[in-house]
Amino acid sequence: MKSINSKNRISELLSHADISIDGNNPWDIKVHNANFYTRVLTDGALGAGESYMDKWWDCEQLDEFCSLVVKADLQDKIRSNRKLLSEILLLKILNRQSRSHSFSNSQRHYDLGNDLFFNMLDKRLTYSCGYWKDSLSLDEAQENKLDLSCRKLYLKPGMKVLDIGCGWGSFVKFAAENYSVKVTGITVSKEQAELGNKMCSELPVEIKLMDYRDLKDKFDRIVSIGMFEHVGSKNYRTFMQVVHNCLNDDGLFLLHTIGSNTSGTYNDPWFTKYIFPGSNLPSIMQIGKAIEGLFVFEDLHNLSADYDKTLMAWHHNFVRNWDNIKSKYDERFFRMWKYYLLSCAGSFRARKNQVWQIILSKKGVPEGYVSFR
Amino acid sequence: MKSINSKNRISELLSHADISIDGNNPWDIKVHNANFYTRVLTDGALGAGESYMDKWWDCEQLDEFCSLVVKADLQDKIRSNRKLLSEILLLKILNRQSRSHSFSNSQRHYDLGNDLFFNMLDKRLTYSCGYWKDSLSLDEAQENKLDLSCRKLYLKPGMKVLDIGCGWGSFVKFAAENYSVKVTGITVSKEQAELGNKMCSELPVEIKLMDYRDLKDKFDRIVSIGMFEHVGSKNYRTFMQVVHNCLNDDGLFLLHTIGSNTSGTYNDPWFTKYIFPGSNLPSIMQIGKAIEGLFVFEDLHNLSADYDKTLMAWHHNFVRNWDNIKSKYDERFFRMWKYYLLSCAGSFRARKNQVWQIILSKKGVPEGYVSFR
Repeated sequence: MKSINSKNRISELLSHADISIDGNNPWDIKVHNANFYTRVLTDGALGAGESYMDKWWDCEQLDEFCSLVVKADLQDKIRSNRKLLSEILLLKILNRQSRSHSFSNSQRHYDLGNDLFFNMLDKRLTYSCGYWKDSLSLDEAQENKLDLSCRKLYLKPGMKVLDIGCGWGSFVKFAAENYSVKVTGITVSKEQAELGNKMCSELPVEIKLMDYRDLKDKFDRIVSIGMFEHVGSKNYRTFMQVVHNCLNDDGLFLLHTIGSNTSGTYNDPWFTKYIFPGSNLPSIMQIGKAIEGLFVFEDLHNLSADYDKTLMAWHHNFVRNWDNIKSKYDERFFRMWKYYLLSCAGSFRARKNQVWQIILSKKGVPEGYVSFR
Repeated sequence: MKSINSKNRISELLSHADISIDGNNPWDIKVHNANFYTRVLTDGALGAGESYMDKWWDCEQLDEFCSLVVKADLQDKIRSNRKLLSEILLLKILNRQSRSHSFSNSQRHYDLGNDLFFNMLDKRLTYSCGYWKDSLSLDEAQENKLDLSCRKLYLKPGMKVLDIGCGWGSFVKFAAENYSVKVTGITVSKEQAELGNKMCSELPVEIKLMDYRDLKDKFDRIVSIGMFEHVGSKNYRTFMQVVHNCLNDDGLFLLHTIGSNTSGTYNDPWFTKYIFPGSNLPSIMQIGKAIEGLFVFEDLHNLSADYDKTLMAWHHNFVRNWDNIKSKYDERFFRMWKYYLLSCAGSFRARKNQVWQIILSKKGVPEGYVSFR
């Protein structure tokens, strides 16, 4: 057993990504607990995230570290190294008993309270990727994204608009204020519905607490921004059928979703455990399958690089405002949330995950659909 | 049997599309042969096209007639009418012997000689959908499309570019002339390769006679414009693997293809028999499946409405220049070609078929891909 030197294995793997242990680059890592190496070898991405939360290691630029790891495709390097795989298997067996340290009490994302989000997001509380073209701040980037979405939908005064998964009402408020449309938002969070309705009380906006599958009304336009990730691959077709049923024949649907380069139910195990249980990223094939015969594919805009900037801005706000909220949380939560924001930023920077704005019509826009960038 | 009045059935079906028999609108039809009705009921789209070639019926605006028929989804109206379906079945049985009139000697598209295309296409011989934004003529629309494609690919002087299915060299010539790139075009047509090389003799262009599956070289950029339709759904994955192998890691691939709202090997039987045997239109799902794990989906631009205009311009040229070429063909060919161009224009006008320009990268453009419209 002495032949397995976990530190050497990790060091060798990281060298493919130009990362050193205790090196001088800001993306190099400092390891505080020597058990880190074996934990990462045996538990992979879950072990890396949990041991970060446990303060076993640190990194000045965690986002860049994650980006380099993803770009170098270290997972693939492990998969294709048979000797290393068998060593990892052995370590897994040896360490089976020692994993009681793993943090099992996963925090649920939407139980976290609004305070956290008030201190992290833009002033409109937009919890999705912004659009940084011609934008200097997070507030601008989010308004820019909301406006881009409205323009892509060709909103006209008086139109009936539906927002599936409206969060705290960021889109519905912006659209009602700036495009004189009547907007219905739906959410499954009672807190979001209450706060959203309060913020939109002067506007032709209604935020309902309901499941998308119970929708019956007809609308001129439908949007869904950052909600499809939580629908689950088994429900993609149902979701699209509901949108189809609720959309007038000459309507438009804007789907804004994080996407994956491959189909699968797999998601990063750390992310699934601590951040978004049950989330699932659709591929183009899965989206294509879900819309077969229902929609015409009019436009796709990839905004992934903008999510890197958005997540870095959220991280900046979160750290800056930590003092406002820290009485409610502990340091382990702080490190978990930091790891979430920075590892996601790195993953988008490496272009592993995508953000797609897709425009769908029911029968094709008669003279052709013209999009905006 | 007397109870089946084919004329009434056709008349009733057409009324759903606001089309009359012997009416006064330019999209109404004039029927010259009373067998028309039964032939269309029994042979469907094939019968409609063949009887048009046989001069059994006429229409002042055949393109608009086709657009209305597609928009009204008459095929679906037939499928959902059980009584009509059983009548059609009966007619099929009764008319089994009488179909010897069908034109079996289908003309092959690329055996038609270059003359036909010289008299129909733009001056660069671009046999694919143009881009009519800010364009007043077919020549402008095609140069506009070629330039749009070059901009979307971010061509830089000295880059090595591959065009899979280069036709008469329209793209390769434009790119070499305007973007100082070194271009290789491949085609399976000897005539196209010879003429293309002749037209590009002063440029860093090479047009090779070869199958895409034999490609081995590496390129900075790859385009395929109007060729994927002929690859066949069984070969989509192979095609994408070849492109992946031939593209440098930081490269871009522009796929320009006609697409379908649904997956299937079905194509219009008249079109398959007379115009493009073996052609097959990919759906988003099929494209998504073919690129899984190979490419990042960066952008999709739908140009369908532009194909309506392009086909109408080709039809205009074809009719205007018919005298130049008619000695080589007969009137039945003239009507076949007219039917091809106008029925396709109508089909794009009805938005039944799509034209997609898709940008794919191997690993994601590092700072994000920015597209053009």
